[in-house]
Amino acid sequence: MATQFFDHINMFVNIDEKDFQRILTFFDLRSVNKKEIIVKAGDLCNFNHFVVDGCLQMFYINDKGTERTIQFAIENWWMTDFLAYHNQSITDFYIQAVENTKILSISYDKQEELLNEFPKLEKYFRVIYQISYGASLIKMKYLLDLSKEEIYFQFTEHFPKFAQRVPQYLIASFLGLTPEYVSEIRNKKRS
Amino acid sequence: MATQFFDHINMFVNIDEKDFQRILTFFDLRSVNKKEIIVKAGDLCNFNHFVVDGCLQMFYINDKGTERTIQFAIENWWMTDFLAYHNQSITDFYIQAVENTKILSISYDKQEELLNEFPKLEKYFRVIYQISYGASLIKMKYLLDLSKEEIYFQFTEHFPKFAQRVPQYLIASFLGLTPEYVSEIRNKKRS
Repeated sequence: MATQFFDHINMFVNIDEKDFQRILTFFDLRSVNKKEIIVKAGDLCNFNHFVVDGCLQMFYINDKGTERTIQFAIENWWMTDFLAYHNQSITDFYIQAVENTKILSISYDKQEELLNEFPKLEKYFRVIYQISYGASLIKMKYLLDLSKEEIYFQFTEHFPKFAQRVPQYLIASFLGLTPEYVSEIRNKKRS
Repeated sequence: MATQFFDHINMFVNIDEKDFQRILTFFDLRSVNKKEIIVKAGDLCNFNHFVVDGCLQMFYINDKGTERTIQFAIENWWMTDFLAYHNQSITDFYIQAVENTKILSISYDKQEELLNEFPKLEKYFRVIYQISYGASLIKMKYLLDLSKEEIYFQFTEHFPKFAQRVPQYLIASFLGLTPEYVSEIRNKKRS
């Protein structure tokens, strides 16, 4: 577990084993059961979560009571409502485990302390957020323009392992499709 | 001009006037005319742009030849295709000035040098990207769920000055609407 987070940080900045052991003390390691909800709409958003193993889903419930998925996070991804986290305000989103998941969670205050003690981690987060923001602009392009069928095939083509692992109804919710529609286009492709 | 960028950086990290004068040497100040295109699809994406004054639009042209707007940047916003910038690869997007615009542009290599010389700017960019990524998750929520009419009213309610300043056809393109549809719902609201 620790090794994987250590390696991930070292992809972007160099830290040694001693620093890493100290860094870990700022986090809580949590085991989250499949379907367990760790953040609810209406909660104060004061934690950031790193996925060690498993998969988290961020969603909200619209006025009609339908779940809409905003984002998934698998191994080595960070997940929170970053704007509410930045503002230390209430979130509109839920975060739930798609499968049994291990996460490293850090509070806003602890993350500030961590960054004061290890300023080099500013670079780690800067690069992570740069990539995440960039990826969300690309997703915007898909959402604005592709047909629902094209979005589904682009997604499964680019993330085949992910598409196999996550239940169809969640992929449907992520892509703004109904589960019935996904079944239909999958059957169409097979035939 | 310089004062405004100085103040913006100082909202997030403390730098003094002497450092700032040195920081400015990493940038090129450019005056971009209304409608001028500064990045084209197919270009290597190796610049990041800070808007000093004016407004930039990021868009792409889909298979049907239609422009779709991904993002606007007004004063104090950064704009590039962040994923292509990170990977130093070809972009699919165009960047164009909506009005006469002044920007500070920095190349990827210069930005790396800048961050090596002033590591405290890692925090500045980390926070900027955290906010930008967070805002894009909120936009995703709107795109996935609201009706086109609701999206338009949410947008004009939250960004009234922006909605007055940017031509209607660009707002339409940003929200995935046709200009005719925007006219129609604006007239409906007036009546």
